[in-house]
Parts: sequence; C-alpha cells; structure tokens
Amino acid sequence: MPLITLLTDFGLRDYYVAAVKGVLLSRVADCRLVDLSHDVAPGDLVAAQFLLAAAAPEYPDGTIHLVVVDPGVGSDRRILAARASGACYVAPDNGVLTPVLEEAEVHAVERPDLYRAGRGETFHGRDRFAPVAAAVASGARITELGPPVTDVLRLDIPEPRREAGLLSGVVRHVDRFGNLVTDIPSHWCTEAGWWIAHVSGHEARRLVTHYAELEAGEPGFLPGSLGTIEISLRGASLAAAWNVDRGEVVEIRAR
Amino acid sequence: MPLITLLTDFGLRDYYVAAVKGVLLSRVADCRLVDLSHDVAPGDLVAAQFLLAAAAPEYPDGTIHLVVVDPGVGSDRRILAARASGACYVAPDNGVLTPVLEEAEVHAVERPDLYRAGRGETFHGRDRFAPVAAAVASGARITELGPPVTDVLRLDIPEPRREAGLLSGVVRHVDRFGNLVTDIPSHWCTEAGWWIAHVSGHEARRLVTHYAELEAGEPGFLPGSLGTIEISLRGASLAAAWNVDRGEVVEIRAR
Amino acid sequence: MPLITLLTDFGLRDYYVAAVKGVLLSRVADCRLVDLSHDVAPGDLVAAQFLLAAAAPEYPDGTIHLVVVDPGVGSDRRILAARASGACYVAPDNGVLTPVLEEAEVHAVERPDLYRAGRGETFHGRDRFAPVAAAVASGARITELGPPVTDVLRLDIPEPRREAGLLSGVVRHVDRFGNLVTDIPSHWCTEAGWWIAHVSGHEARRLVTHYAELEAGEPGFLPGSLGTIEISLRGASLAAAWNVDRGEVVEIRAR
Repeated sequence: MPLITLLTDFGLRDYYVAAVKGVLLSRVADCRLVDLSHDVAPGDLVAAQFLLAAAAPEYPDGTIHLVVVDPGVGSDRRILAARASGACYVAPDNGVLTPVLEEAEVHAVERPDLYRAGRGETFHGRDRFAPVAAAVASGARITELGPPVTDVLRLDIPEPRREAGLLSGVVRHVDRFGNLVTDIPSHWCTEAGWWIAHVSGHEARRLVTHYAELEAGEPGFLPGSLGTIEISLRGASLAAAWNVDRGEVVEIRAR
Repeated sequence: MPLITLLTDFGLRDYYVAAVKGVLLSRVADCRLVDLSHDVAPGDLVAAQFLLAAAAPEYPDGTIHLVVVDPGVGSDRRILAARASGACYVAPDNGVLTPVLEEAEVHAVERPDLYRAGRGETFHGRDRFAPVAAAVASGARITELGPPVTDVLRLDIPEPRREAGLLSGVVRHVDRFGNLVTDIPSHWCTEAGWWIAHVSGHEARRLVTHYAELEAGEPGFLPGSLGTIEISLRGASLAAAWNVDRGEVVEIRAR
Repeated sequence: MPLITLLTDFGLRDYYVAAVKGVLLSRVADCRLVDLSHDVAPGDLVAAQFLLAAAAPEYPDGTIHLVVVDPGVGSDRRILAARASGACYVAPDNGVLTPVLEEAEVHAVERPDLYRAGRGETFHGRDRFAPVAAAVASGARITELGPPVTDVLRLDIPEPRREAGLLSGVVRHVDRFGNLVTDIPSHWCTEAGWWIAHVSGHEARRLVTHYAELEAGEPGFLPGSLGTIEISLRGASLAAAWNVDRGEVVEIRAR
C-alpha cells in the first residue's frame, strides 16, 4: 500500500485538501494518506521547506511526499519529481525542495496525458500534482515523467557561523509553544555556564537539557529536536514575551 | 476496504470527530476515513453544501459521504440516506445535500435497531449518523434503511444571470487565500479586455488565466477551479482588501 | 492492522505530529492512525484527560491510544504503558491518564533499546513515545516494557454533589459551539419544570431534550452526550454570552 504524505498551504476550511485526496484515492485505490501539514501560511515557502526537511526523514523508504505550496500555479514554473534518500518528492520548482535536493535525482514533469481534465489554471494540486503523485504511487519511475533537470530553483538559506567566543545564526522557526528554533548546531554549544544566548536585545543565560529544568518564567536555551539550539521560556511563549519572529538574528557568546 | 468521508462543523478541538471515527472503526474494522473538513462554521449549511459539491465528485465510486452539520439534532428532522452518481450520502434533512440531489435516490432512515445506545439527544453524529454510515459501508442498501422520500428540504441557492453586456451573480465562497469564488460560469466570460468585474464598489479590470499573471497588489478575475469566475488579488487577500464576504453581488460588464 | 490514535498538544502547524506519524509508520508498516485531537492547548492536562475519557470508549478493542501532552518532557517523569477495558495507553505519568486508570494494569516503560536515537531531550513524542506505541502495536506486552507501578500520578478532578433541592458541580468543558458541559449527571435532573441552572450569576430556566427545542437566544439545559447536563444557548455560544470558562461552579436548584 503506497504511502503518500501531503504538505500544502491550503488550510482545512476549503475543499482543496479534500479534492486532492479524492484524486489520489480515485487513481490509487489502496494508497495511504498522511497529512504533514496544511497550515503553512499562504505561499510561505520558507516554512514549507523547513517542515518538509524536519518531517520527511522520519518516513519509511518509498514514501511519496506531495508538496503543494505553489503561488506560481498556472505560470510556466515547472513541476518537479525528485528522488532522494529513498523517498520521492512531487513539488513545484520554486525552492520548496531546497533541503532535500542534496544528491537528489530530479526530473521536470511533462506528462499532460496524466493530468486531470481541469477547469482553469488555479488548482494544479488537484489537476496535475495529485495525478503525478498517483502515477508514482502506481509504479511510474520519475525518469518516465520528463527530462532530468539540474537548474532547480533553490531558496537562499543562510548558514550559521562559528567564531572564537561567538556563535551566530537566525531563528529558523517559531513553534506553537513559542520556542525559538535556531540554526545553530547544538554540538557547537556544549559547555554549560559558558554561554549566553542573545536575540532581539534579550538574553537567555542558562543552557539546560529540557524545558522543565527552567524555573517558571525563566528563559533558557537547550539542544532542540532537530540538532540545533532552541531558546525557550518555561510554561509560556518566548516568542510572544520577547516579540521575536522568524529570521531574527541569534548570537551565543562566551561569558 | 470501504471509504468514508466526513464533513462536519465539529472542529478539531472537541471529542466529537474522534467519537464518530471510533464508532465507524468499531463497526467496520477495515474502513478508511478521510476528512473533507471539520472547519465548517457552526451550523453553516451553505458552506457545507458548497464544500460537499466541490469535493465529492473527486472521490471514487462507492464512497460514502457522511455529513453532520446538524443544528436540528434531536428534533424530528429526518436522517437521509441518498445515492447519486455512484456515491452514497448520509446527512440530516436540512438542505445540506441540495447540490447532490439531482437524480438522487433518497430514503429517510428509520432504523433505531442500528443506533448506538446513546446518552441524550445532542450527538446523533455519534449515535445515529455514524452507525447508519457503518451499515452502508457493511453492505446495507439504502432501500433497507427506510422509506423513499421525495420532499427533501433544499436550500435556495440563487442562479447567476446573463444579459446583453452584463453577467451577474454572487460570491459563493471566500477561500483561505481571500479569493472570491463566484457562481458566474467561466465560459460566459472569455473575451479578454472586454470585461470589468464589479463587487462592493470595487473593480477588477483584468481577466487573466492564473494568479501570478497579475502584478503584486493588482486585482483581477480569472477562470477558477470549479468552472466559475474567481476575483483575486496577487499575493494578498482580496476579501480583506475590499471587505467582501460571501453573498455579495458580483457584476461583470462589457467595457 | 493495528489501530493507533494520537492525542497531543502539538497543533497542526509544526512538524511534530508528522514526525510522530513517520516513526510509527516506519516501525509498523501496516498501522492505521487516527487523530483524537492535536488542538489541546499547550500543556493542558485537564483538557487532554477529558477528551481521552470521552473518545477512547468508542474505539474497538485492541486500540492503542498514544497521548503526548508532556510539559515535563526530558525530566524524570515516567512513561507509562497501561491496559484498561481492552485498550492500551502510552502516555507520560503526569495525570493525563486519570480517567482511564480504574482497574488498569500500569507499567513504567524502561526500554532505551526501543527508543529512537534522538537529538536533545525535547521531543520524546518522536523519540520515545512513538517507538513504545509501535512496539505495542507490533505485539509487545506491556509487562515486557518495564515494572508494574501503583503510584501513578492522578489529577484531582472534583466530584459533583447532590443535596435536597440542590445539585452542584462545575463546567468541565466548553465546546466549540459554546455549550457548557458540566459534570452533573443527567439522571439526577429529570423532572422538567422543577429546576433552574445557575452559573456565574446567570440562570437557565428550561430543561429541554435538544438544542432546537429552545427559542433563538434562549438559554436552557439538557442531557448532554456524555451523560451529564449541558447548558446551552440556541444558535449561539453561551460561554461567550455569559463569559463562562471551564471550572466555573454550576448549581441546579429546585424552583
């Protein structure tokens, strides 16, 4: 039973996710569908690629990840089918696959014969992406979908830096709990007591291993679940308390 | 493996959807469940029928669509089981099935023997609708569920109009992206440059084929994914910018 | 095909739910996943145990309920595996299992060999709970997971009281529709016309059987879907109208 995940910015209030699933189930009767998320903000490619990079590695070999965050729908942006690390990806060529392109085999899909006879050019999720994912789930190889491409669009994702006494990076994600997920590798920052995290004029002075080690209302930083440092407040949203958003610069300095 | 979709106004914060699914899985061990949506506003039959009409046609033959948007729960409103276009519907008799009733075979369910021994009369989704859908998924014919009915309640859904130089209709839906989905058929409106869409004192002057064809901040109108005209703003919510809601009158005039 | 339900406070915007599902599907290829809810407010154990108690009994024997509402993640709080009423539960030892512990067999999980090699101590949902649930789904008995425990943490959930002419309890839950779900058993309150429900300085004077029996804007009380009294407003949120939240005292008095 093929496993297909869905990552979109469609939300759950409209008929869009339901239509995509209907097309998949109509074409691959025994497929299993899992939602990665549909709550990506409209057109937010940075959020979508972050979520994809974080979740996809947990899935079994052979999983098909269908990504429809596609502000360019209907334009001549290409549809990509990629294979990397045992998984397959179907997504628009707009940068959303950036973190999974390392050593990926990528093809530009050119198979109008597969597409659903659609109305308009505003819903390729239903009319093109879902049929392509269904074809892969039914056994099509990505080499059969169109020519290989090497000029895939990539997002410019900044790299963290490490200098004497100074680690610097950015807030890559603010999660539901208000934790600031940075891009600074946790293993750069292992000597407790030596470091102070700075962001947006505020300081977290304690490096801990888990949230509950902090006092109520105390900010701290800790090795997060993606191998990078998180900055957190016990029992409340640090993002709200410090008014910090994605992209904010983070510095961790030796005391 | 029977396929059952769920469309409710229960939201995802309460135990209601989980309970309905539990009843279905308890009675039909191998059924597959797909959420159409649970984010219909409380009691919003107009939104529910729109979503059902848009999504249901994508599903394979034999799909059972369970609809529980049911402000009259516990009253003497009937429970309907309908068969149309290869699908089966289980829903309250309150108009929510309006768009799928064309050539439908409809029965009023009268099978207390199937119902879950419930508490109170406030959760027929769990106690009656789910058991009825489970019975259908297990092979019951809708003719076995109760007498045929012909006096099904229908919502009064207005029709768009076409006159010389003037197309008029309404906003049927505002989607997550702030697009205004109208009821004006796209094929009425094919001569680019000849038309101006008017809604709520504002004008969109450009007929395009896809969102990205517009300039940032420019309003336009285009053939949408349901075969009707959408009015949109590039990269932002037109509904917010123009303060337009469902039901607003739309006119498209020759220049 | 093992059935695993998920109840978390992760929301649907982050990668957390998707990662947990990936781990489950990687370890138990044929498992079926159902969301109880992911919209529990961050760390809200009272809401989580209420939802679990309401939904779990609807599921078939053999269902595994995975609960990750875990503000103490990474601390020395234990992970529990419990068996009760034909179901299995995997959850932190923080009170969230309170309503299902009656006659439960409970073990503290001590099986680092099962855990996913994780990063950090902030996401045991992915690194420990999911692997443990996967082991149970694959046939492990809870007796193999660790020693039996009898000192499980329990939440202090108040009991309703019944005196001459006075029933008293609390609002246990406010649902999406703004109904106040109380803990007062419906069967304590069966003589229509004899009772007045009081909460927060307001009164509901009519005991009905279903919402639609009330006039628009009229408050009333009725036997709810969990066997307890609900207080409701026809077609609107009583919680908003009366500004009532969970925990508020409710009294039902003889006239």
